[in-house]
Amino acid sequence: MKIALAQLNYHIGNFEGNLQKMLDAAAEARRLGADLICFGELATCGYPPRDFLEFDDFIRRSDASVDKLREASRDIAIVVGSPTRNPVVEGKDLHNSAFFLSEGRIVGIQHKTLLPTYDIFDEYRYFEPATEFHTFQFKGKKIALSICEDIWNVGNENPLYKICPLDEMMDERPDFILNLSASPFDYTHAALRIHTVKANVQRYGVPMFYANHVGAQTDVIFDGGSLVVSPDCKVFDEMPYFEECLRVYDLDEVVRGGREAEQPKDKIRLIHDALVEGIREYFHKLGFKKAILGLSGGIDSAVTTVLAVKALGKDNVRVLLLPSQFSTGHSVDDARDLAENLGIQYDIVPIKSVYEAFEGALQPFFKDLPFNVTEENIQARVRGTLLMALSNKFGNILLNTTNKSEMSVGYGTLYGDLCGGLAVLADVYKTEVYALAGYINECYAALERPNPSPHGEGSRFELGAAPLPLGGGVGGGASTSGTTTPPQSNSLSAPLPEYSGVGGGASTGAVISHQPLRGGGLIPLNSITKPPSAELRPGQKDTDSLPPYELLDRLLYQYIECRQGPRELEAQGFDHDLVARVLRLVNMSEFKREQAAPVLRVSPKAFGMGRRMPIEAKYLS
Amino acid sequence: MKIALAQLNYHIGNFEGNLQKMLDAAAEARRLGADLICFGELATCGYPPRDFLEFDDFIRRSDASVDKLREASRDIAIVVGSPTRNPVVEGKDLHNSAFFLSEGRIVGIQHKTLLPTYDIFDEYRYFEPATEFHTFQFKGKKIALSICEDIWNVGNENPLYKICPLDEMMDERPDFILNLSASPFDYTHAALRIHTVKANVQRYGVPMFYANHVGAQTDVIFDGGSLVVSPDCKVFDEMPYFEECLRVYDLDEVVRGGREAEQPKDKIRLIHDALVEGIREYFHKLGFKKAILGLSGGIDSAVTTVLAVKALGKDNVRVLLLPSQFSTGHSVDDARDLAENLGIQYDIVPIKSVYEAFEGALQPFFKDLPFNVTEENIQARVRGTLLMALSNKFGNILLNTTNKSEMSVGYGTLYGDLCGGLAVLADVYKTEVYALAGYINECYAALERPNPSPHGEGSRFELGAAPLPLGGGVGGGASTSGTTTPPQSNSLSAPLPEYSGVGGGASTGAVISHQPLRGGGLIPLNSITKPPSAELRPGQKDTDSLPPYELLDRLLYQYIECRQGPRELEAQGFDHDLVARVLRLVNMSEFKREQAAPVLRVSPKAFGMGRRMPIEAKYLS
Repeated sequence: MKIALAQLNYHIGNFEGNLQKMLDAAAEARRLGADLICFGELATCGYPPRDFLEFDDFIRRSDASVDKLREASRDIAIVVGSPTRNPVVEGKDLHNSAFFLSEGRIVGIQHKTLLPTYDIFDEYRYFEPATEFHTFQFKGKKIALSICEDIWNVGNENPLYKICPLDEMMDERPDFILNLSASPFDYTHAALRIHTVKANVQRYGVPMFYANHVGAQTDVIFDGGSLVVSPDCKVFDEMPYFEECLRVYDLDEVVRGGREAEQPKDKIRLIHDALVEGIREYFHKLGFKKAILGLSGGIDSAVTTVLAVKALGKDNVRVLLLPSQFSTGHSVDDARDLAENLGIQYDIVPIKSVYEAFEGALQPFFKDLPFNVTEENIQARVRGTLLMALSNKFGNILLNTTNKSEMSVGYGTLYGDLCGGLAVLADVYKTEVYALAGYINECYAALERPNPSPHGEGSRFELGAAPLPLGGGVGGGASTSGTTTPPQSNSLSAPLPEYSGVGGGASTGAVISHQPLRGGGLIPLNSITKPPSAELRPGQKDTDSLPPYELLDRLLYQYIECRQGPRELEAQGFDHDLVARVLRLVNMSEFKREQAAPVLRVSPKAFGMGRRMPIEAKYLS
Repeated sequence: MKIALAQLNYHIGNFEGNLQKMLDAAAEARRLGADLICFGELATCGYPPRDFLEFDDFIRRSDASVDKLREASRDIAIVVGSPTRNPVVEGKDLHNSAFFLSEGRIVGIQHKTLLPTYDIFDEYRYFEPATEFHTFQFKGKKIALSICEDIWNVGNENPLYKICPLDEMMDERPDFILNLSASPFDYTHAALRIHTVKANVQRYGVPMFYANHVGAQTDVIFDGGSLVVSPDCKVFDEMPYFEECLRVYDLDEVVRGGREAEQPKDKIRLIHDALVEGIREYFHKLGFKKAILGLSGGIDSAVTTVLAVKALGKDNVRVLLLPSQFSTGHSVDDARDLAENLGIQYDIVPIKSVYEAFEGALQPFFKDLPFNVTEENIQARVRGTLLMALSNKFGNILLNTTNKSEMSVGYGTLYGDLCGGLAVLADVYKTEVYALAGYINECYAALERPNPSPHGEGSRFELGAAPLPLGGGVGGGASTSGTTTPPQSNSLSAPLPEYSGVGGGASTGAVISHQPLRGGGLIPLNSITKPPSAELRPGQKDTDSLPPYELLDRLLYQYIECRQGPRELEAQGFDHDLVARVLRLVNMSEFKREQAAPVLRVSPKAFGMGRRMPIEAKYLS
C-alpha cells in the first residue's frame, strides 16, 4: 500500500482555497500511485478557527468541503480533519473529527479524544471528546486514526489526561497509525514531536504517519515537519520545515525501516525561519504585499527589517529613519548602512518640527514642569503617527519591532513604538535578538562569499528564496534532538530547558559569545555592540531603567516560560529585590500588552492568547 | 439557624485585602447573631484569576487565606470559595472548591462540577470537575454546597452538561442549598439568575441562599444581586446591585416564605449603573483617581463623561476639547455646555498647528495626493497623543469613548480615537447610547427639580453618591423579570431577546422614541439630535460610510450576540448586500479590536475575552 502525506498551508475560513489545495494534492498523490492521502486536523476550515465554530454557516461550509472530498475519493482514499456536529444533545455542540473517505463514501469518522485546553488552545470551548474508538479496514490493512493531541498521552503518562485513545484501539490490532495534526511551532516543538511519535511507535510496534499543517495564522506558526516513523523507532522521513510538501511512502518499505532522516534542529535558525514565515503569511493571508517600519539604528529594528526583507523581498520593505534631537549621529548612520546593505527604500524624517508643535500645544498645560517620560512618549508617538500615515497612504503594513524583554517589563510606549500590525520579535528576548543578529550576519556573509547573488541590483546582500546555510556555532540549546532530556508530557508542568538565548547555557555576554561579528556584516557591527538605548533623552541607556539583559532575560524566562514564583526564583539565586521589581514590572504592564499587536509565537509561552492575565490584579504588583 | 450572605467586592490577587474583608464580615455577622456566613466563589483570590492559577505561589497564598478563615471559624461557620490542588495525578492540577469551615476545622470541601468554558470563561483550562458529592451536617441541618454554574443545569436540561450535581446530593435530603457564585453582569443576567435559582428551589423543595461577587475586574463586572429564594419559589430577598452587602436571614422565616422582594430590572438603568461601577472599579483597583477624555460635542463622549463624573466625582474628571479645522462651531459649544453643566475642568486645544506640522513632515511623501482617510487618521492620532500627554504628565487615565457599533465595523482610528485605558461604551450599541443619554437627562432632570443638590458648587447638576430615581419610559426590553420567556439554558444556543436598544422592540428612531428630551438637559439636546459625525473632513456624516444606526445595530446584534450567519440574516429580512457588507466590515476589523482597550462588558456577547476570532481569516471578509 502507498500512503501520501500532505503538509499543506491552510487558511482559516477559506473553504474554497483549502478544498482546491486538497483536491489538487489528492490528484497528484493518485498520479504518484498513492492508495490513500492524509491531510491535517480541521483542514477544511483551517486551524484555529476559534469562535467561527459557533456559527452554523461555518460548519455547513466545512461539511460541504467534506462532501466534495468524498466525491473525489473514488480513486484514492482520503483522510481529512473537519468539525462535525455532536448528535447527542448533552455536551458540546461539535466534535473535532477525522473522516475516512473511500470509493465515494464516508467509510467512518473518528473524533478527537484529547482536547488541549491550555496555553493558546481552547478546544474544550467547542468540542466534545470521543468516547468510541474504531479502526478502519482498507485494502486488507487496519488503520488507527488519531488527531494531534491524541498521541500526546502515551500509555496514559501525561498527567493532564485520563484516557489514551490509541490504547483503546489496539485490541483491533491496526497495521499502522495515521495522525492528523495542527501542531504549532515553538523552538522546542520539533524535537518533542519526534520524541512523542517515537514513543507511540515503540509502545504499539506499528509505524505512524503524521501529517501537520504548515504556514501561519497571525500569531500561531506551523512548521510542518510531518513525520513517518518506522517500527524500529527511526525517523523514516521528516518533511521540511516551513514549506508545503507532498510525499508518497510505500508501507512495506516503512515497515522495513532502517532509515534515519531527521533534520537538524538549531534553536536560532528555527526562530529565524519561523519569524520569516510568520511575516510572509501575515501579509499573504491578509492580501497585503508591502511593509513599513522605523529603523532606529538599534538591533531590534535592524533584525526585524532583515526578516521582513527575507519574507517579502527588498522591493516590498520601506523604512523610515526618524531621528529626534536625542538621536546620536551614528544611529542614523547605522540605520542607513543597513538599508543600503539591503537595498531597500529608506527616508529620513526628523521628528523635531512635529515634536515642537506638540510642545507648543501643550505649553499652556506643562509650563515649566520638568521633561520626563511624557516627552519621551510624545517622541515615540510622533514616530508611530508618521509611520501609520505612510502605512495608510500607501498600503504598507507597519511592523512592530519590540522584543520580548521590553514587552515583558513594559519598556515601550503604547501608541508609539508599540504600534504595528504584527509584533515580529515580541516573543524573542533581547539576548536572543543578539543571537539572531549573529546568525543573520554569519549566514548572509557565507551566502555572499561563495555564491555572489545573481540578482544583486544595487544591493550587496540579496535575500532571495534560496535556503540559507545552517549557521555554525549559534544556538544549539536544549531542543537539539537526541541530546535533550525528553519531557514527560506537554502538560503545564512539563519541564523546560534552561534559558539559553545565545546558545551555550553558561554564556553571559550575548555579543562576545559570537565569533565572526566583523564590521562588514549585513547588520552593522555598531548596531550589535553599542549599549541598547531608546534615545528619548540625552545619554539614555536601557540599563538606566532595567537590569542588564543577560540577567533580566534569565529571570523573565523563569517567570514567564517556567511559571516560577518569587520563592522559587530566590531559591534559584536571583536577588530578592530584583525579583520583586521585575515581577512587579511584568504584572503592571499587562495593560500595555492588552493593546499590543499580535505576537509571532516562537517560544513555549508567548504573550497573547497563550498567556491570559488579569489587568488590574494586585498580585506581585 | 441564622445564615449570613456576604456580597463582597474582591480584588484578584489581593489576598490580604480579600481576607481582611471576609474576617470583618464574619465578625459582623457573628455580632448580628449568624451561625454561618457564606462568601463567594474563589473569594480568597478573586475572580477571574486566569493564569495566575498556574503559579504555585498563588495557590499557596489562597491556602494561607483559607487557613486564617479556618482559625476564625471557632464561633461562626464559614463557607468560602478557594482553589485547591487536585491530589489525583490525572486531570487538571486544580479544583474550584468550596470550603466548609467550623469550630476551627475544615469540615469538608465540595468541588465545582460544572466548569463554564465558553464566552469569557476558561474554567476547564485550570480545573478538574468534582466527581464526589456530599452534604454537610451543621447544627442539626444538612447543607448542600454548590458553586456558581453548578445550579445552571437544572435537572440536566442544560445541553452543555451531562451531570446535575445537586441531583447527586438529594439522596442525602439537604435542608437548604448554598451557592457560592462569581456570576458576571450582563443586562439579561439578573433575570436569568432569579429564574434559575427559582427553578432549582422548585425542583428540590428547599430554600437556596446565593452569594455573588460585586465590583468589577477590568472588563468583567459583577452586579451582586445575591438571592434568598424560599421554598414557595418567591424571592425572599435580593441584595442591591452594585453595592457590597451583608445580611443575616433566619432559616425558619425563609422556609415560611411569603415575601417577594425582587428589584426592578430596567435594561438601560442596569447598563448605566454597571458602566459607572466598571469605571469606578478600574480606577480604584489600579490605584488611580483621575480620568481624562476628549469631548467632541457628540453623544458618545458626552455620555462617557457623565458616567465618569458619576463614578469618580467631578473633581477627578478633566476633558479636552480638541477641535480641528473640520469641527463645526456648535461642537465646541455643545462640549463646553456639557462640561459647564457638569462643573468639570475643560480646556480647548485646537489641533491645527500640530496637524499642520505633520502635513509639513509628510509633504515630501504625499505631495499632491488627495486628502483621504490618512489625513483623517492623523487628526485622530494628534488628539490621542495630546490626551495621552496629559494622561502621562498628570496621572489621569484616558477613557475611551468608542461605541459598540463603531467598534464592530472598525469605524475608528487605531492609536487615535481608539486610545484609552478602558473602553467604556464599546459594548453599547449607538442606539443604546442614545437611550443612555435619554435616561441620563431624565434622571438628572428629576434629581434637579424636586431635590436641588446640596453640593452644587458651581455646577448645575451634581452627581453625588445618591441613588438615581428609576427613569420611566426608557429601556424595558427583554430582561424585565416575569415578562421574559425563560431561556432553556445558558449554553451557546440559548435564545436571546430581540434587539431593543431604545426600549420598544418596534421603535426605529432612537431619538424620537424618547419623550422628554428638553433643551435644558444635562447632555445638550444638540449632542443628541444632530446627525453623528466624526468631523474629520468637511460635512462628514457617519451615514456616508455606514447604514443608519437603527438598521446597523439590529443587524450587528443578530450577528454578534445571536451568532446568525448570512443565510439566517437574509431569512430575517436583511438585504443580501447589506449583510455581506456589514459582516465583511466586522470580520475585517478584528485587527483593530485586537489592539483596543478592555471593554466594559454589559451584554451577553462583548468584544474581548468572550469573543475570540481569527485576525487573518478569509471568511465572510
